Amino acid sequence: MIDGTIARSAPRGRVFLVGAGPGDPELLTLRAHRLLTTARVVAYDELVGPEILALVSPDAERIAVGRRRGTCPDAPSIHPAVLERALAGLDVVRLKGGDPMIFGRGGEEAAELAALHVPFEVVPGISAALGAAASTGIPLTHRDAASSVTFATAHLRAQDERTGEGSSLANRVPAEGTLVLYMGLSTLRETARGLVEAGRPLETPACVVSHATLPDQRVVVADLATIADAVERAALPTPALVIVGEVVTRRVVPTQQQVAPLTGTGGGPAPVRKVQRG
Amino acid sequence: MIDGTIARSAPRGRVFLVGAGPGDPELLTLRAHRLLTTARVVAYDELVGPEILALVSPDAERIAVGRRRGTCPDAPSIHPAVLERALAGLDVVRLKGGDPMIFGRGGEEAAELAALHVPFEVVPGISAALGAAASTGIPLTHRDAASSVTFATAHLRAQDERTGEGSSLANRVPAEGTLVLYMGLSTLRETARGLVEAGRPLETPACVVSHATLPDQRVVVADLATIADAVERAALPTPALVIVGEVVTRRVVPTQQQVAPLTGTGGGPAPVRKVQRG
Repeated sequence: MIDGTIARSAPRGRVFLVGAGPGDPELLTLRAHRLLTTARVVAYDELVGPEILALVSPDAERIAVGRRRGTCPDAPSIHPAVLERALAGLDVVRLKGGDPMIFGRGGEEAAELAALHVPFEVVPGISAALGAAASTGIPLTHRDAASSVTFATAHLRAQDERTGEGSSLANRVPAEGTLVLYMGLSTLRETARGLVEAGRPLETPACVVSHATLPDQRVVVADLATIADAVERAALPTPALVIVGEVVTRRVVPTQQQVAPLTGTGGGPAPVRKVQRG
Repeated sequence: MIDGTIARSAPRGRVFLVGAGPGDPELLTLRAHRLLTTARVVAYDELVGPEILALVSPDAERIAVGRRRGTCPDAPSIHPAVLERALAGLDVVRLKGGDPMIFGRGGEEAAELAALHVPFEVVPGISAALGAAASTGIPLTHRDAASSVTFATAHLRAQDERTGEGSSLANRVPAEGTLVLYMGLSTLRETARGLVEAGRPLETPACVVSHATLPDQRVVVADLATIADAVERAALPTPALVIVGEVVTRRVVPTQQQVAPLTGTGGGPAPVRKVQRG
């Protein structure tokens, strides 16, 4: 599809690998917001919600990239339609849920773009764990409770897609500290068991946050022994992430935020914030 | 200083625990930017740079909280001047470098505010590791190189400030995956040695990023055997963070970004971006 000769001689558009954050449009960075609202071409995946896409100009071309996480190991990470537009000289905003460099394949897309001499920029986003920490009031580190935090995928074994070899969860998470599991809902029961086998006590606090930072955010708190049952009863929808560790007990739920603007400013009202149900 | 009787009866201002991100003002969230530009009182610590503080209204009161990281274990986390303003009914923006919930003591400040019935909100920020990943082009996870990323402080032993007991770095970081060490420059030599003792090969790629996302960002790449010498020769200034792991070899430096606005938009020029020296 991409002719190397043409590709090398044509004027290039740029590709912006942009983190859309955890869901709340107010948590876009200024840079992401500016790129998004002025873009002519926006490609987005399933993790980017309608609240964010509403910011895209009605004149812009929208490309639904579809797959939430790549399922085909050998497929290129960058979508062919994105490449086509860039090689035709159009700038493209490639929106990714959360942050492009954390479970977002931003590194792989960047490498593919560089190989084709397409200029690119990476715009970081609030990764889901950071959004969930703020909106639930659970600190990810705490001087009395955790001096490290690990973000991992929840699969018990992370398959190396080249060699087919697996790496156990125990090798991928430390013995201490906070653990945040992305995409962990469907395998929660196995993960909790795996963590206990790896040495975490059954009574380690655990929490699942569904739709973090959005109006329908929901939080379930339990421990490693009971979290899978509790989440099953609550029938939480994805996307959701799992926070494991002593920090869950340090949760201090923020004040509900559907309130007034800042006091005494002439700057106009702050936007209405959604109720934090957590 | 705080009289419980008065504190309970007076009208409260709110405290906004706001992440200022890694340095580049364009990486503030919309919410943080709005709060910052309309605030009447802004309290900030040393990690918040002049580029960000320039956004604060000239009429606002500015409170330099000073200490970069708390050094006195028993001191309250929230600054007395912040509490005073809130108890007097003023809203206060408490700006923290990076994200409030990752090595920012946001959880502790939130708990102290809740105990005094001061309403609060936590606004997440781009943590330094996310900013550095985007601006250096080093992915923090990668399907062929790392399925987890751990953020830790670089101290060889994390002292529990209550019990005085220490927890070794080996317990706080996993055997595999990416490792990002915050505040790691002064102890880099000991940390690199500690990681090797904990089982990481001497030739594990390592990278130090100083002043991530700012115009004077600098990057040094080496391995665990040589990184301390390399950084010493380069005389890198703090704040800096250390990225360790196979992902360092996946670095793809983004295109220099002191370029034109998006093509074909009517939205006016994007702001000039600084050269990424990395």
